[in-house]
Amino acid sequence: MSSAEDIAKAAKSAFEDSQLISSAERVNALRHIRRALESNKAEILAANREDLKAAQVEVDAGRMSESLLKRLDLDKGDKWDSVLHGVTDVADLPDPTGIVSYAKELDDGLELYRVSCPIGVLLVIFEARPEVVVNIAALAIKSGNAAILKGGKESNRTTQLLAHAIAAGLSQSSLPSTYIQTIQTRAEVSSLLALDQYIDLVIPRGSNSLVQSIQNNTKIPVMGHADGLCSVYLDESADAQKAVRVVLDSKTDYPSACNSAETLLVHESLLNSVWPTVGGALLEANVRLLCDPPTLHALQAVSPAPPTAASLATPEDYTTEHLTLTLSVLAVPSLAAAVRHINAHSSHHTDSIVTESQHAASAFCRGVDSAGTFVNASTRFADGFRYGFGTEVGISTGRIHARGPVGLEGLVIYKYMLRSTDAKGHIVGEFGTDKKQYKHANIASTQLPF
Amino acid sequence: MSSAEDIAKAAKSAFEDSQLISSAERVNALRHIRRALESNKAEILAANREDLKAAQVEVDAGRMSESLLKRLDLDKGDKWDSVLHGVTDVADLPDPTGIVSYAKELDDGLELYRVSCPIGVLLVIFEARPEVVVNIAALAIKSGNAAILKGGKESNRTTQLLAHAIAAGLSQSSLPSTYIQTIQTRAEVSSLLALDQYIDLVIPRGSNSLVQSIQNNTKIPVMGHADGLCSVYLDESADAQKAVRVVLDSKTDYPSACNSAETLLVHESLLNSVWPTVGGALLEANVRLLCDPPTLHALQAVSPAPPTAASLATPEDYTTEHLTLTLSVLAVPSLAAAVRHINAHSSHHTDSIVTESQHAASAFCRGVDSAGTFVNASTRFADGFRYGFGTEVGISTGRIHARGPVGLEGLVIYKYMLRSTDAKGHIVGEFGTDKKQYKHANIASTQLPF
Repeated sequence: MSSAEDIAKAAKSAFEDSQLISSAERVNALRHIRRALESNKAEILAANREDLKAAQVEVDAGRMSESLLKRLDLDKGDKWDSVLHGVTDVADLPDPTGIVSYAKELDDGLELYRVSCPIGVLLVIFEARPEVVVNIAALAIKSGNAAILKGGKESNRTTQLLAHAIAAGLSQSSLPSTYIQTIQTRAEVSSLLALDQYIDLVIPRGSNSLVQSIQNNTKIPVMGHADGLCSVYLDESADAQKAVRVVLDSKTDYPSACNSAETLLVHESLLNSVWPTVGGALLEANVRLLCDPPTLHALQAVSPAPPTAASLATPEDYTTEHLTLTLSVLAVPSLAAAVRHINAHSSHHTDSIVTESQHAASAFCRGVDSAGTFVNASTRFADGFRYGFGTEVGISTGRIHARGPVGLEGLVIYKYMLRSTDAKGHIVGEFGTDKKQYKHANIASTQLPF
Repeated sequence: MSSAEDIAKAAKSAFEDSQLISSAERVNALRHIRRALESNKAEILAANREDLKAAQVEVDAGRMSESLLKRLDLDKGDKWDSVLHGVTDVADLPDPTGIVSYAKELDDGLELYRVSCPIGVLLVIFEARPEVVVNIAALAIKSGNAAILKGGKESNRTTQLLAHAIAAGLSQSSLPSTYIQTIQTRAEVSSLLALDQYIDLVIPRGSNSLVQSIQNNTKIPVMGHADGLCSVYLDESADAQKAVRVVLDSKTDYPSACNSAETLLVHESLLNSVWPTVGGALLEANVRLLCDPPTLHALQAVSPAPPTAASLATPEDYTTEHLTLTLSVLAVPSLAAAVRHINAHSSHHTDSIVTESQHAASAFCRGVDSAGTFVNASTRFADGFRYGFGTEVGISTGRIHARGPVGLEGLVIYKYMLRSTDAKGHIVGEFGTDKKQYKHANIASTQLPF
């Protein structure tokens, strides 16, 4: 077995060796990978059934949750087909590399181009869902990055066969065979997290504890989100129908998703009008409400609910990602107080205001320091596919590099290429006071000419 | 005295409170800061003389270098005026915030905008040069970030008065007074590096050891460069005149700068032609050459040099940032070998090829994994001002967020604003198979409409 350092070194070499390979060849590799997956379908799904059988034992013994087991299943509904389609979809996306985003003539015959290019070597760590290995491999290949992938141990059998199919597809292209590598153990992850000379970006996809433990144990930049603590704020001018629709969708459409709402803030002036309507609708949808005294009293006055359905909140409830049909509710005296509460308690993921006031909408969107600030729209819209990115690497709550849903753009950076076409070449010593001055003239073409 | 946590919290509050303040007001603050600097000139330069006097004692005792002392002097040449001009220059740059870089209609009446915005709270740590406090404060204010600044202890007296002038200028604007704070001790820096809930980006500007120690001691993202180990490669087809000019400028224009060349790679076929010419010119310019055997023998055959001027290199010389008139030289058998050497030994800052071949230029620029890849141009061009950014936050050798010389763009990120203008608001539950489909239509306007 290779050491973590061998794996990381091989990934870096594969990345460097791939720099002169055209993006068409990367697309070609993706088509071969799709074909390899298709022709290995039977074996892959058989391995997946083995993983499911072993997981069922864990579930029966109370050591694994039913929802985790469900996420393992690669043969449920149209999941297998969507994995295959995903590979083709990514292959068909526009090439994120080679895009010129800045082009200036610094002097006659001295041209500067800022060109998008892959980041380097990605280390992607994910839990449970085995298809992520295919999704991420496709995204890495499309964007020109080498990747090291580590799946959950529950899906090891499936992941191994998926990795074989990826390797088989790669071997039909001119990309290096170590372009995409998979690893199996947590111990390897720990070793890899120390190898910042070879690995350029870590992308953890999984539980809060996974993400936090990775952030605490590496110098390598980490892209992802630990928490998804989203809020909806009902402004003074909120329309009751919009309030009900947006709050219910934000909370109940998919409660375990990171873009579901966990906190509802209610302007005091709505306590006896819009709030009881919204609260009643939430109770009807089996949402458990954890309220502060004003919202609880106002609710009980109109829709008496048993304490199991509506009860007093503790301070911790306002920093808890429930991920279930539970919602923390708080009355606030003003928009400014709502913004302050959100900035202090939310995870800077996505927060929404329900308002009829353009001024309040504008103040909320600017004042709330989150990746997504929404007006009269469900927090659940925070998603790469919905945003139109075609696919999604993950959602970032960081403020560096990429924020919010991250598409292929999040897997590239840029480099500066400078070319002198002057007969003597270009030197800095010829510029300065009483010497040549920089032109900084825009170059219209966005094509790299060399 | 405030604790580090008080300082960090105050910075975060100042940042959040400033979100509704217009960018015009930030420009106004910069103009007031310039005026405050002008009216406090005498006191500031007097404090600077005190710092210089104390530093001279250290230099005389052999505890400080002469070059560090020189960097302290704020009254040398036109430095003071250029500090003042710098503030106005930054004020006059285009606003980097509020720029829409992605705008899609997701559905009728559901508009998504990706809008550039400040990152949050910056912690900037720098050494010696006291004017950096003014430069960085100006950049932070212009881009809408709050900042905590820590200068070198050698310049404490000057920095304190500069900080007072900045505070006086800020107080004339509606920006919070804790928008820019300065701290004095290393202990405070250590405490601040642990406060990732308040501080969003650390920018160290100083020695390799400073940057590395910061990177090793924080979870907060760090932007900067530890090393500037740049190379020039003389390709098989290199023109002799271009080779001499580019190599000499790269090495001798400003040897202590991070964008100066430290290594020269020579294609074997040039050993008895272009290389002795280049080597002779370097010796003439008092550059000490640390050569591998082929380049040393070829040089000695043509330009016999004493061992103090040209000698055999050790392996470590090829990973050393000399920062003086010393250059490591190595013969390579091919362009591919040059690229491999650079990727393994350089600091991914800036590397240049001298070549007459378009194909070699293209392969070098794509194959070398550095922030800058140059053709027939001096590595010294790697600089924000020369690139046309107006000013420079620093140079990044990271591959996340910003790479190479970083202008104001490196101090912003973006957020997604989503607005429904539909009469019922927008919910995700209405989209899907047999339901509404996403439109993802481009919105032509790049103006945020709310």
